[in-house]
Amino acid sequence: MSAPRPSGCPPASTAAVPPPRPCASHIRWTGRPQRPRLGGTMWNPVANARAAWRMARALRDPEKLQDVLGLAPVLAPPVAMRRLVERLMSHASAAQAFIERPRVGLLHLAALRALPEHTLGRAFVDHLEANQVNPDALPYLEARTDEEYVRAHLLESHDVWHVLTGFPTSVAGELGIQAFSLAQVGSPFALGILAGGLTNTLLYAFSQREERMRAIVRGWLLGQRARPLFGAPWCQMWESPLAEVRQRYGLDLAAVDAVLDDPMRPAMEVRNPGSASPPQSC
Amino acid sequence: MSAPRPSGCPPASTAAVPPPRPCASHIRWTGRPQRPRLGGTMWNPVANARAAWRMARALRDPEKLQDVLGLAPVLAPPVAMRRLVERLMSHASAAQAFIERPRVGLLHLAALRALPEHTLGRAFVDHLEANQVNPDALPYLEARTDEEYVRAHLLESHDVWHVLTGFPTSVAGELGIQAFSLAQVGSPFALGILAGGLTNTLLYAFSQREERMRAIVRGWLLGQRARPLFGAPWCQMWESPLAEVRQRYGLDLAAVDAVLDDPMRPAMEVRNPGSASPPQSC
Repeated sequence: MSAPRPSGCPPASTAAVPPPRPCASHIRWTGRPQRPRLGGTMWNPVANARAAWRMARALRDPEKLQDVLGLAPVLAPPVAMRRLVERLMSHASAAQAFIERPRVGLLHLAALRALPEHTLGRAFVDHLEANQVNPDALPYLEARTDEEYVRAHLLESHDVWHVLTGFPTSVAGELGIQAFSLAQVGSPFALGILAGGLTNTLLYAFSQREERMRAIVRGWLLGQRARPLFGAPWCQMWESPLAEVRQRYGLDLAAVDAVLDDPMRPAMEVRNPGSASPPQSC
Repeated sequence: MSAPRPSGCPPASTAAVPPPRPCASHIRWTGRPQRPRLGGTMWNPVANARAAWRMARALRDPEKLQDVLGLAPVLAPPVAMRRLVERLMSHASAAQAFIERPRVGLLHLAALRALPEHTLGRAFVDHLEANQVNPDALPYLEARTDEEYVRAHLLESHDVWHVLTGFPTSVAGELGIQAFSLAQVGSPFALGILAGGLTNTLLYAFSQREERMRAIVRGWLLGQRARPLFGAPWCQMWESPLAEVRQRYGLDLAAVDAVLDDPMRPAMEVRNPGSASPPQSC
């Protein structure tokens, strides 16, 4: 292969090693990048008021990444993160990931772009470009503790999960990814975003209920069926065919989409055949 | 057939006709029965405060029927109910139901109990008894307008839907019914209960997230595939075999349960085979 290798995986992150370039995200970052103060207590009046304000803004405009990310310490406080780590530890591959702490690492976008079509890396960079994603938008999180690793790895894997699951970057697609994440990782953050997403749908986007519910159901089914993606060394798989990576992790998109588009499901017009019900007068 | 007919369907409800006995419900009714003031404006400070208090109590204890029902005018205000009626009108069978307004009507529990096993009526009364349902627990709602008919019919059909979909009377089962209702009817009330149910799960019942999400996914899939149940004259079907009624409405429980228990889905232990991932160090 003549193309330059798109990326080497970074070593397990330590304070001594300079952080690799942050992973990309498509979501609008409305303020200056700011590292969330993970593990810090949020239980003081000012922090609570800020959290409530962020929650209200995120409910109204779920695309405001800063507000959504700012909810992480509220929706998944330290004690919840500890339980999450313990649950993940019971999985063989996730437990291994906590030892090696693989990161997405430095992104050589030009090298990824030069990869053959249908590779994970090329699909990834195509996803970034198609959705006008700014690769520098997300803060780089360090991973010195297990809890920090969960947050950091989930954040930097977010767009890889988009590519693997085929969810678009719409609000519906984001809810689909969170349902997938809830099924895979059992993250309270994901559950909080789902609850907020349905509340947003009720208050501001009722006409999108079908699209969003379908995405949630799709994400849950995919997440339940797939092997755990948590802790996967994506940096080693850029050159692998996307279809092969999906197969490796049990991501059978066609099977789940077939369930949702079941030909048994009668069309809107056919759903009401006159003969389906007995006559309605007694 | 020698058994007495369990029930005749009541005529379309008018002010001149005495209301039939209310339909049953299993949910705890914590206060004295009180007819919700449908269509009344809730937009004054006292009503808002009451709604907020009910919402907080329902979030904490979703089994408190009075609080949940009290949210109906807030989650589905008159303008939302009008749109819901218009959407339903576009379905042939639902449009017909608005003309004839079939009701569940008088329940002769002893006659239903005497029906052969596997009939809808017998399954219904078994469901009431197994779940210690008080048939007098729910308020009887009149149906003089289309909007009133939607609320009244959905309320009195609630336990019939439980029987048809096979959802238990747990919180998970109730969320499943609401997801089913959202898919079938597009009710904002159902969406509000789902949003509240996920918030309750996050705050008070995180360990039940899998059971509840599974029920929501199951309800959505069943509701999407089935023919519309809205406006069905249940009172005419007590003697029909339950399997036949399910088939008539396209409720293929086995197919949906097979999707959720897909044998392709690897077990927890098998989900993490060492060979699934490439080695994690670079």
